[in-house]
Amino acid sequence: MHDLPLENVYQLLEPGPVVLLTTAHEGRRNVMTMSWHMMVEFTPPLVACVVSSADHSFTALRATGECVIAIPAVEMAQQVVGIGNCSGRDIDKFAAFPVTPRDGRAVAAPLIEECFANLECRVVDTQLVQKFNLFVLEVVQAWTDPQQAAPKTIHHHGYGNFIVDGAALSIESKMP
Amino acid sequence: MHDLPLENVYQLLEPGPVVLLTTAHEGRRNVMTMSWHMMVEFTPPLVACVVSSADHSFTALRATGECVIAIPAVEMAQQVVGIGNCSGRDIDKFAAFPVTPRDGRAVAAPLIEECFANLECRVVDTQLVQKFNLFVLEVVQAWTDPQQAAPKTIHHHGYGNFIVDGAALSIESKMP
Repeated sequence: MHDLPLENVYQLLEPGPVVLLTTAHEGRRNVMTMSWHMMVEFTPPLVACVVSSADHSFTALRATGECVIAIPAVEMAQQVVGIGNCSGRDIDKFAAFPVTPRDGRAVAAPLIEECFANLECRVVDTQLVQKFNLFVLEVVQAWTDPQQAAPKTIHHHGYGNFIVDGAALSIESKMP
Repeated sequence: MHDLPLENVYQLLEPGPVVLLTTAHEGRRNVMTMSWHMMVEFTPPLVACVVSSADHSFTALRATGECVIAIPAVEMAQQVVGIGNCSGRDIDKFAAFPVTPRDGRAVAAPLIEECFANLECRVVDTQLVQKFNLFVLEVVQAWTDPQQAAPKTIHHHGYGNFIVDGAALSIESKMP
């Protein structure tokens, strides 16, 4: 995987893809599926996300203050749904699904080898955790897989209905 | 426009489309382009968004606590970029662009006639406004245009580069 400059991170998350979120806590790694995330700042890249207190990952994220946001291409859609439909409380998802954990550089949560991008994150604000399960993260290290040159992401419309990235459209703009 | 049940709102925003945000303040309506938003709760539908304090809309949103999130289909892409590239400080965007304001039911901010969905929102939390320009909104009334049956949305990758919705993909899932 190659380093991605941190100022480019927003270009990966702003389009709203379904992502995976990994944690590592008390010797156990876990991974969940997530669609409720948004950019908060360009640089340093800040990301807000909602991880339900009903999710097994909530405890790990809260306790360690670390996670990885891994972005899967459409080829992983079946695994993404499978990972979203079970809990790390009951099974080891890294054993149950064909996703390969890999050590990151800055955090203990694992990267996912098969994802085209991996963002190592630290929690920087927890003011809205109790009220809304809303965490603010800083992306401290970002990776992309040069072998996945034009990944198509998936966007969730509810109940396993996804829209896959379609055509590209370029319009001259002054906005980043 | 038809009423959309509030419990279905997340299906419109979770995929991460570029949206328009309207406000009304001191007799002036304004509209901006926004991509930094996410769902926070299913029902009542809560949405977090980042509106920069540099944006003219920030003052109106803060002062009135009301806005409309209007979702444009790809046919409006040129207008969406145009609206994003100028400020309500300088011009009346409803006069400058072919977007038609229409009265909503619950808030003073206008709906946009040409958008396939309009979400009337009230600010419900401002704890992270000062630090991150992050507002939490509650959607109190939602509308869809029955004449736009299968709208394709656009997703921003930076600098006017968009990906348009492509193929649909359905995978059996237990997740809402």
